[in-house]
Amino acid sequence: MPLIHSGTQGVFVISVTPFGEDGTLDRDSLARVTDFYLEKGADGLTVLGMMGEAPKLSAEESREVVRITLARSGEAPVVVGISAPGLAAMRDLAGFAMDAGAGGVMVAPPSTLETNEQIVTYYANVVEAVGPDVPLVLQDFPLSTKVRISNGTLGAILEATPSVVMLKHEDWPGLEKITALRAAEAAGRRRTSILCGNGGIFLTEEMARGADGAMTGFGFPEMMRDVVALSRQGQTDRAQDIFDAYLPLVRYEQQPGLGLSLRKYVLAKRGAIASAALRKPGGSLSAAAVAEVERLLDRQARRLAELA
Amino acid sequence: MPLIHSGTQGVFVISVTPFGEDGTLDRDSLARVTDFYLEKGADGLTVLGMMGEAPKLSAEESREVVRITLARSGEAPVVVGISAPGLAAMRDLAGFAMDAGAGGVMVAPPSTLETNEQIVTYYANVVEAVGPDVPLVLQDFPLSTKVRISNGTLGAILEATPSVVMLKHEDWPGLEKITALRAAEAAGRRRTSILCGNGGIFLTEEMARGADGAMTGFGFPEMMRDVVALSRQGQTDRAQDIFDAYLPLVRYEQQPGLGLSLRKYVLAKRGAIASAALRKPGGSLSAAAVAEVERLLDRQARRLAELA
Amino acid sequence: MPLIHSGTQGVFVISVTPFGEDGTLDRDSLARVTDFYLEKGADGLTVLGMMGEAPKLSAEESREVVRITLARSGEAPVVVGISAPGLAAMRDLAGFAMDAGAGGVMVAPPSTLETNEQIVTYYANVVEAVGPDVPLVLQDFPLSTKVRISNGTLGAILEATPSVVMLKHEDWPGLEKITALRAAEAAGRRRTSILCGNGGIFLTEEMARGADGAMTGFGFPEMMRDVVALSRQGQTDRAQDIFDAYLPLVRYEQQPGLGLSLRKYVLAKRGAIASAALRKPGGSLSAAAVAEVERLLDRQARRLAELA
Amino acid sequence: MPLIHSGTQGVFVISVTPFGEDGTLDRDSLARVTDFYLEKGADGLTVLGMMGEAPKLSAEESREVVRITLARSGEAPVVVGISAPGLAAMRDLAGFAMDAGAGGVMVAPPSTLETNEQIVTYYANVVEAVGPDVPLVLQDFPLSTKVRISNGTLGAILEATPSVVMLKHEDWPGLEKITALRAAEAAGRRRTSILCGNGGIFLTEEMARGADGAMTGFGFPEMMRDVVALSRQGQTDRAQDIFDAYLPLVRYEQQPGLGLSLRKYVLAKRGAIASAALRKPGGSLSAAAVAEVERLLDRQARRLAELA
Repeated sequence: MPLIHSGTQGVFVISVTPFGEDGTLDRDSLARVTDFYLEKGADGLTVLGMMGEAPKLSAEESREVVRITLARSGEAPVVVGISAPGLAAMRDLAGFAMDAGAGGVMVAPPSTLETNEQIVTYYANVVEAVGPDVPLVLQDFPLSTKVRISNGTLGAILEATPSVVMLKHEDWPGLEKITALRAAEAAGRRRTSILCGNGGIFLTEEMARGADGAMTGFGFPEMMRDVVALSRQGQTDRAQDIFDAYLPLVRYEQQPGLGLSLRKYVLAKRGAIASAALRKPGGSLSAAAVAEVERLLDRQARRLAELA
Repeated sequence: MPLIHSGTQGVFVISVTPFGEDGTLDRDSLARVTDFYLEKGADGLTVLGMMGEAPKLSAEESREVVRITLARSGEAPVVVGISAPGLAAMRDLAGFAMDAGAGGVMVAPPSTLETNEQIVTYYANVVEAVGPDVPLVLQDFPLSTKVRISNGTLGAILEATPSVVMLKHEDWPGLEKITALRAAEAAGRRRTSILCGNGGIFLTEEMARGADGAMTGFGFPEMMRDVVALSRQGQTDRAQDIFDAYLPLVRYEQQPGLGLSLRKYVLAKRGAIASAALRKPGGSLSAAAVAEVERLLDRQARRLAELA
Repeated sequence: MPLIHSGTQGVFVISVTPFGEDGTLDRDSLARVTDFYLEKGADGLTVLGMMGEAPKLSAEESREVVRITLARSGEAPVVVGISAPGLAAMRDLAGFAMDAGAGGVMVAPPSTLETNEQIVTYYANVVEAVGPDVPLVLQDFPLSTKVRISNGTLGAILEATPSVVMLKHEDWPGLEKITALRAAEAAGRRRTSILCGNGGIFLTEEMARGADGAMTGFGFPEMMRDVVALSRQGQTDRAQDIFDAYLPLVRYEQQPGLGLSLRKYVLAKRGAIASAALRKPGGSLSAAAVAEVERLLDRQARRLAELA
Repeated sequence: MPLIHSGTQGVFVISVTPFGEDGTLDRDSLARVTDFYLEKGADGLTVLGMMGEAPKLSAEESREVVRITLARSGEAPVVVGISAPGLAAMRDLAGFAMDAGAGGVMVAPPSTLETNEQIVTYYANVVEAVGPDVPLVLQDFPLSTKVRISNGTLGAILEATPSVVMLKHEDWPGLEKITALRAAEAAGRRRTSILCGNGGIFLTEEMARGADGAMTGFGFPEMMRDVVALSRQGQTDRAQDIFDAYLPLVRYEQQPGLGLSLRKYVLAKRGAIASAALRKPGGSLSAAAVAEVERLLDRQARRLAELA
């Protein structure tokens, strides 16, 4: 199956891991939500990310998520999150995933890294552990990882480790980082694919700065599909109109912790998964939050109809 | 001049501190931006907050900001941020500010606090230092302070320290915290004023949950004035329409670090301050960022015209 | 095999995980170091702790460490560290370990916990995951975990979760915490076993405050054996003389990161393991550090001879 | 009065700030403890450090501490800690201190710095603020500041900012950092004075690695005087004997938070200050802690008598 590479573009949806109300892995819903993402415009998928509740899974369950997703994903590349406290577990999961047909693996830096040098060494160690032929996505998400990767550090990693072919960009603020990366490429550094996260909340600007697309899990992948496609066609005002229509919900879904409950609520409402339940530990939505999201969904539908 | 109290409502704008291009305090602009805020609908002001670049000022400059603002603020209460590494400096500035006519003081917890008990003790120490008659605003902003204040801790502070009359609410996610605070009041706890921050990005939902208004520095105070007023009148759809028109800019201004440069850019463009300069250390806007904000301002004006 | 309980006393050595120079698990050395610890006075062992390089092991290697250790530990209870990013992995390893004959499991709080309430809930979730019959050790090591557990929080956990039978005490400073725990017991709270860590650097004072012994990995378990035994017999000056003789090395071994390399160097020199190698990522000792430790070992031997 | 420079050697004692039981600055004791430190072997002093309770002082009190100390310090250079949240306050205090006759100023990095580049830029900004002629001490104390300065970052600062003439070295572990610094100098980098902190707990090894002395506040400066002098004379065994005699107390004083109470207790007992009180917020010693320190003092006196 297809590998990701430094020229990969489009929308990679960060897949949720569906659970039953009792916390068991819901295999049927996992297959269904995979289909749903692809129908709504995903060019690829990312499983076992932070928003996939990866750390809550046992090693065997993680493998099952990979297997089930790959059985439905067809020609769409699938990135597998392998972040773990140690290299041995990462090597094992990466080996399994690539053998099963994954398109690459994704690694976020552990919160214990403190200096630029430690970050560069960490990614060198990861590449040594998983092997130099496995396409690697560097997840740059300081709000969650507590690790700030400067442009200089990022450049040092890209130059030292050719298998880092993609950046999951969610530094915040991060627009200048995209500009700096593309400028470094114009000055001779090898190209890197840049897919943006943060729930898509800066997607229009990110595309204008040179991003290749989105990698995030907003419950309406069609927003990302349309914004990315329209941006690539130069229809930036139309892209922004679509984006703005979804923005109240994008914003609401950005609430840390709560966001995943909202996302699963939307996906369940749209029929993509059977239950909005998170595995423990994980919150649930209050009646007030449900009313808020329903109101935003109503307004969003009306606004999209106006724009149609 | 008027004091804040547990029933205070409305919009308190977090005031910027204007500087010349050479980094000197711009006294004229400070007077002008104070007028501007009040003209655009501010019910009160907050000076020397994080977005007022307070830590960059000398002790004497801080006093001057208080003096100049109070000379223009008339009947509008002015809250003075006094957060500092030690209690002696806080006591000195609080004493000066209250003598000069401030309406209260604001204190964020220092990042060294680690347990619920330490947080409660800290606010007891602050009250002992500034005196029990000084109205106190507790700034609850974990993203910046790194201190997470649980509902239980907040309740313990409110019960132990009567002079904490207001919460600057910017926990994120924080909607359930407003609901919990109001529920505790319904069950008998004394009332607290809740003004919300975070650049206003959840203002419509916050008002619906029981907030008394906003305390934040978005460059268009009229958005906050309108949303708060319409929300209080029950015109929630109209409030949301106005809010949504400003949301792309609200979102853009929320970028940490960069946000203040954007805010000052908007204020300078609107004629409220002479220069958008930040005092060192502080960034400036790239040409790309300026183009992005200009584009958002254009679209915002068009959308507001459609709604008028 | 024997379980730990709230009355457990003595010395539990935190076992190293021996590796070959090529990073493979050294099964023979693991058996040998287990024997060594027991010969030198360990009453119990703790495997897969932070100093056991647990996060660097694959799931299968972790199980093998448990199996090999339990095959040699005889009547000595063995505590198994199960800290992991998620509950499913913890439940799996706890189940395996207890079935294999472990005496209990140990869990440190994850660094993401921020409030007292979150810490209490976390341990409730752990107990629900591993089952209420599995004896649990709470590792209280803020320097490493970044989680500060107040006396009140600790009390709430002990009262809510009866299966927490032991505290691995390494808050720093932490002597008053021991005193407070014992005072709470005198006032009616159930008893908890307190074994102290931090490389033993406060062991004499900890025993005087009411600790039940040590749980740490200093390369000379006989120091801990003697200090604990002499303290229990009231021979506090003799205990302190022995302690002081080892203190220069205890201090030297306390250097974070470097400490484990030193510990393995000492164990290899004493014949307990074949190689001092750490698995990647992990440092090695410089020539200067080796010279320093050799000098300290020489002086320690001379001082112990004077005291004999 | 004398300035510090890149060749400065010896013992700089971190001076306590004495308070009365009511929390007021005790000017008499401040004069007396200054005399005490110099009599016991200090070559220089450092005031307004972390252990000087600097953040608890008002701006005017800080200046008074500088004035009183300089009035007694004679030919001994005095370093003034100027760390503050903003550059303006640092510039003001540095200007005052240097005008009053200080030998240099000391700055620790603020905990908000996250990347190597930010750390380098911060020190450039500090030098710009205080002026390039003011001798600067870089305090490298990650345990407290949360900022890890790699060897590369330190080198970049030393090369970019000639006025950084001294390192207050208290990274932990930090012995290899001394070795690396001296190796870089041997390879051509300009010399830097290295004085070591951490309560002196690694002083013998630090001297052997190339340190120029100590900068820390242990209550028996004569230990540091003797160890530094003996080390410089090559009498390393005698130095270690002296060190080991004090080590149980050095270790006990290293308890964060509690350590300062212990230090002031010792200084009060030795007649150097009138009261051991800390200004609020600050702990006090329990009866158990007092008994522990008294016991350690007794044993220390006996051991020193044996060595005499």
